[in-house]
Formats: sequence, structure tokens, C-alpha cells
Amino acid sequence: MGLVVKKFGGSSLANPECLERVAWIIAETYSEGNNVVAVLSAMGDTTDELIAKALEVNPNPSKRELDMLLAIGEQESIALMAMMLEKIGLPAVSLTSWQIGINTDSVYGSARIKDVMTERMRAELDRRRIVLVAGFQGVNKFDDVTTLGRGGSDTTAVAAAVALNADLCQIYTDVEGIYTADPHQIPGAKKLAEITYDEMIELATLGAQVLHNRSVEMAKRYNVKMEVLSSIVRKPGTKVKGVVKVEHTKISGVAKDSDIARVAVVNIKDEPGVAFRVFRVLANAKINIDIILQSINREKMNDISFTVARSDMKRTVDVLLENKDSIGFSEVNTTDKIAKVSIVGAGMMSAPGVAAMMFEALYDAKINIEMISTSEIKISVLVDELDADRAVAAIHAKFFGL
Amino acid sequence: MGLVVKKFGGSSLANPECLERVAWIIAETYSEGNNVVAVLSAMGDTTDELIAKALEVNPNPSKRELDMLLAIGEQESIALMAMMLEKIGLPAVSLTSWQIGINTDSVYGSARIKDVMTERMRAELDRRRIVLVAGFQGVNKFDDVTTLGRGGSDTTAVAAAVALNADLCQIYTDVEGIYTADPHQIPGAKKLAEITYDEMIELATLGAQVLHNRSVEMAKRYNVKMEVLSSIVRKPGTKVKGVVKVEHTKISGVAKDSDIARVAVVNIKDEPGVAFRVFRVLANAKINIDIILQSINREKMNDISFTVARSDMKRTVDVLLENKDSIGFSEVNTTDKIAKVSIVGAGMMSAPGVAAMMFEALYDAKINIEMISTSEIKISVLVDELDADRAVAAIHAKFFGL
Repeated sequence: MGLVVKKFGGSSLANPECLERVAWIIAETYSEGNNVVAVLSAMGDTTDELIAKALEVNPNPSKRELDMLLAIGEQESIALMAMMLEKIGLPAVSLTSWQIGINTDSVYGSARIKDVMTERMRAELDRRRIVLVAGFQGVNKFDDVTTLGRGGSDTTAVAAAVALNADLCQIYTDVEGIYTADPHQIPGAKKLAEITYDEMIELATLGAQVLHNRSVEMAKRYNVKMEVLSSIVRKPGTKVKGVVKVEHTKISGVAKDSDIARVAVVNIKDEPGVAFRVFRVLANAKINIDIILQSINREKMNDISFTVARSDMKRTVDVLLENKDSIGFSEVNTTDKIAKVSIVGAGMMSAPGVAAMMFEALYDAKINIEMISTSEIKISVLVDELDADRAVAAIHAKFFGL
Repeated sequence: MGLVVKKFGGSSLANPECLERVAWIIAETYSEGNNVVAVLSAMGDTTDELIAKALEVNPNPSKRELDMLLAIGEQESIALMAMMLEKIGLPAVSLTSWQIGINTDSVYGSARIKDVMTERMRAELDRRRIVLVAGFQGVNKFDDVTTLGRGGSDTTAVAAAVALNADLCQIYTDVEGIYTADPHQIPGAKKLAEITYDEMIELATLGAQVLHNRSVEMAKRYNVKMEVLSSIVRKPGTKVKGVVKVEHTKISGVAKDSDIARVAVVNIKDEPGVAFRVFRVLANAKINIDIILQSINREKMNDISFTVARSDMKRTVDVLLENKDSIGFSEVNTTDKIAKVSIVGAGMMSAPGVAAMMFEALYDAKINIEMISTSEIKISVLVDELDADRAVAAIHAKFFGL
């Protein structure tokens, strides 16, 4: 008998029919003799609806109270799912984060899980009950409710799997697994049988939007076997693990991220510490920087370009201009008409020519590269936003065929 | 500086405009220098909507899971009210029953409060925060969520007032106070300035539907000053207390309860213990009995008639017929075409002729009395359901004028 943690997102729980489909998935694993812990998100668009309600009352609600409000979404899901399982004759119990003891820090809205108590869950599992866990939320040392941020239920699931030493953590979603590219956009995209934690992390960061990044980092740290699979189509999904069998393809996937903007700080003096001064003021303002490019021109003046989330663009400019004198530059240029296209693959470093293949694909498609960034397992390029979809298609075709 | 507990029901919290009106009521008391604890029900029809959702998933949900689901309604109210108070510049904090420690027994769906912890509330009040308490719910010794049953938020408010030794417990509702009769039905109904706990308890039992009965019993036991008042019209309401000033009127009010049925057990042997046998089987089935009338006829056979809630009528008959042999009777008759009309007044016993006035009013209106029941402070009569409204009007006119 094994212990399986399953996580179901909001789109898998949108209405009573969805709840029933999920109940039968749980029932199948349970009836095979396994213990089952199911982590549930809020149903459908509940979280967005609650946020809209809050903003109607107060355009700038305190994060503590917003978390108190949002937490009801998952409580609704677990109570209704317990009733659904009871209806089909299975013993179930719903548990909130404070009942379990999912302890977090106090950063309301994006709290981090510190530990997960197992006593209550173990007691219920020992009675052969299916345990339904409210995802996305926790409780801090003041006994106040916190939430983990978008996609936080994935993290709840992995944290529960770690705490309970589960045999498998299955993340059910509305796609059948991890693909070599967005299957809605690239018809030839292929489902991967396996992917490494590191590749998954890069793909998540790069806008693949399948798994919450923090959950994969945690799974990697504690070596939790994960699987991403569909709650609608009953097929094997994609396994996420430490080492995968050697694949014939050199890369795992191609991803696009349009939610970025490029900021250029022009004519910075070329003297020691200048880059530090730029990025310190941005770090103080809690603005995350992604790709950085520094260029030197003849007059010993530098330009520093970098990318930020599109929603941070205006604030980035404001922060830089407020510190214009202390940093020392002439002007700031920005554009949000760009996108980042990336390839990811754990085997990239040992397979020479991957970068060349990518650039060749873009050259053949007559797509101009504005910036390049590389890591051990990924290569990202900045291209005009209007070229981004063509870029993904061209690169995918080059590596995976049409 | 005083401490005031205020309770607002669902109809006072139906939408953002209602929330804002309530916020300003709280603000006024707070800005006069008082500490304020506000106990909130679920907004509008939220509880009914959640019950409907549950029944859609499972027509017979477990009570434990139903309580888990229903509890989200009040959590929504307190979080949104905290945001509303923040918007108008007041410090507020929402607290659920498990955060406070509103400890109950484990009778899901109609739990009783055992004690209310004060540490967290006191800490927040000491920081001059307005404390918003989720009404209607508690937590049992297993750390599971319970609810207190319909109207339970009144009880939450009084229990909080007892625990905190509050100076006043104000129950805001959609009427301006306690009236001598239902003002929607009797145009001449007068608002009472004061009423005793005992009168209030009888009126609540008798269908006045203004205050949850258990809350008044608790207020009486701990001598909590209560006031019933409107959340819409800013006027003094009705004070509920131990002793009231002598009023010129002999009674406090006239109430009607149509939610009853009469059951007659016919031809019971007239031997010791027979009434006990009837009421024991009903008590075992948790059926509450109200008015009882026993009549003896010539053949030494008794009829026992009594009233039950209309929803219990069928079950009462079933239970009696199942035990027909052990009790010993010939048949059971029932009718639900009846209503109970009652007058309540603490000064009734010292004012002779009250009963006579009531019966005279009914006689003048040509209304037949089917059963009579009296206590120290009330007189109830059973009349044909079709006569009930005329009966209330006639009695009210007799005591209070038109």
C-alpha cells in the first residue's frame, strides 16, 4: 500500500460534474489499496471573484484581510469534495491549513511554507480516510491565515508529500503533461514522458505556466517524484524527477514569455560599481531583474539594458529617475513590445551546437535577436513581440520537426 | 471608555452599501472612545446558497462537512468588513472562531458554546483595533469546525459579551426593536422601550423571530445588557434586561406561531405512566413537544393532545405508530391547520383579569379556542390557522387600542 498525494487545480473543480470526475480519480487510486491525500484549489474562478469582491469594498485592502478572504475558496472545495466522496461511498475528511498545521512565514499574499505537521493527517489516513487538504494557504505564528500566491496549491501538495514521505505527488491540470512547446500554439508539440526538476524550473520561469516554480524547487530538494497529468483524459502524464533517461532530442522544450519589458539605462559612466548602484536601487524597490546586457561604447560610457516584468516597467523607470544623480546616467529608454523565447534542456551542455541550431532557425525565419542570455540548461533570446510566435514555431520545427 | 459588542445579521450585510452603513455604525461607537467587538453573520442569503450548493453535490451531506462549508460565509463577512473599516480609516482585525477559541461541543449543525477565550480579542482591543468576529460558528475539541444553528450569531455575540464582560450587547436587525405585535401585520403595534429577559424568551419561542432564544437565556444567566435595534434607522431600540420599569400596559406583546401542528393520541388507557410512555418515545426521537392537553372521558380512556413543530408532524405519527403496542392507544389524529397566539407580560400575574381580557377579545371576534396553555408570564391559545391574524389583531386592540 502506497501513499499518493494528488493536487487538483481550479479548472478541474469548476462545477459539480468536475467534482465528480475528480472524486472518481481519487476513488480509483484509493480502491487500489493506496492512501490518498488530495490537495484542492478553489473552484473555477472563485479566487478571482473573491478578489473582485474585495476591490469593490476597498481598492487597496490589507494583505492580511485579503488572505483571510481568499482562504475561504479552498475551504469550500474541500468540504464539497468530502460530500461528493461520501456520496459515492468513500470515507473522507476535509482539513484546513490550521487544522493540519501548514505553518508559514507572515508574508501575506506570498507566504512560504516552513513546515507541515503530520499528526492529524496520519490519524485520518490510519482510519483509511481520504484526506482533503485546502491548498494555497497556511497559518503563521500569530495564528493568522496566509496564502502562498498564485499556483500555491502545487507547493502545498509537494510540501504535504515531503512531510508524509509520500510515494508520488501527482499534479492534475487541464493539459496532459509537459510539452515541447505550447500545444495550443504549436500543433507538432510533443508530450514528454519525463523531464528533470531543473528543466521544469526553467520552463516554469520561462512562462510555461504548468507548475508553480517553488513546488518544483521543493520537489527537487527532497527528491519527491512528481507527475503532471490531465484530470480529463486518463493517460500517463509527464514524470518530473532528478535524472531522466537519455533522450534523442537535445532539448526538452521551447517556451515564450510575453510578460516582459526591456529597460535601457543610457550613458552611464564607466567606473567601478556603476552596475551595482543601478541594481541596488531596483533591489531595494523589490523589482526583479531578468536578462542583463551591458555594452561599452567609445566614449567610455556604458549602456545597461535589462528586462523586468511588464507590470514593473513604469515603477522601474520611476525608481531609476529618482536616483538619477546618485547613479549617474543621461536617460532611460523602455519598450514592452518584446518577448523572450527560450529553449531548455538538461543535456544541452553536453550537446554542442544547440545554440547554433537555435540561432540558425531564427536566421532562416528572418527574426532579429535583440539580446541573448544563457545558463547551463537554457538559452533565451529577446525578439520583437510580433515575431515571438513565429520564433517558437521555427525553433520547435528545427529541433522536433513539424 | 466602554466595551460594546455589536451583532449584525445577514440582511444588514447584504451588499457593499450595507457593509458601509454598518461600518459607520461601528465607527460612531468606536470614535466615542469605546472598544468595539462586532459579530457578523454571513452576507445576505449566503448560508442558504451554500446549503443549496452542498445539496447539489450530495442530497445527504455529513453534518461535519456541511459545517465546514457553511463556516466560510461568516469568514467572508468579517474579512470584507475589515477592509471596509480600513477604507474609512479605522484599524480592524477579523478573527474566526478557531483564532479566538470559541469552543463548542461536537453537535454539528447545532453546537453549543462551552467557553470563549479572550486572550486574542483582548490583545487586539488593547491595540485599539475593532475586532470582527465570525458569528454562528465554533470549534470543537477535535479542532473541527461546528456551527450553532439558525440565529447562532446572536449567541456568539452574547457569549463574547459575557467572556469580555462587555458593557452592552447590541443586536442590529431589520426592525427597530421589539414590538407589541408584528408591525407588518398590526399597524398599531408599538415599539417597547424595555422588555425583560423572560418576556423576550417567551416571545422568541412564540414565533416573534427577533432574537435567537439561546442568546437571551445566556444574557439572562449572566445579566448581559442587550439592546435590539435597527441597522438602518438610527433610533434607540428595545433594551432587554432583568427588571423593567412598571409599564402601564399589562402585557408586552402578542405573538403568532403558525409553524405548529397538533397531534392527538386517542383512547389511551387511563393508567399510571401512560403519558410518560408517550413522551418518552418522542423524546428519544428528539421531537420537541409544546402545549399538552390531556382529557378524560367516561370510559376511563384518555386522549392526549399536544403540539409539535409542523416539520415534525409526520415523524411524530411514525414514531407513535411504531410504538403503538407498548404505549397502548387506538389511533393518532393530526392537523396542521392551526396556529398558536400568545400574550406575554412579566406583570401578568399581578394584574388579575388579563386572561379574561384575552378570551373576551377572542369571543367578541367570534374565534374559537381549541386549546389553552399558561405559564407565569404568558397565555397561549390554539386557534384555527385561518383565524390567527384576526386573533392577534383583536387581542392587540383590546390591550393596546387600535
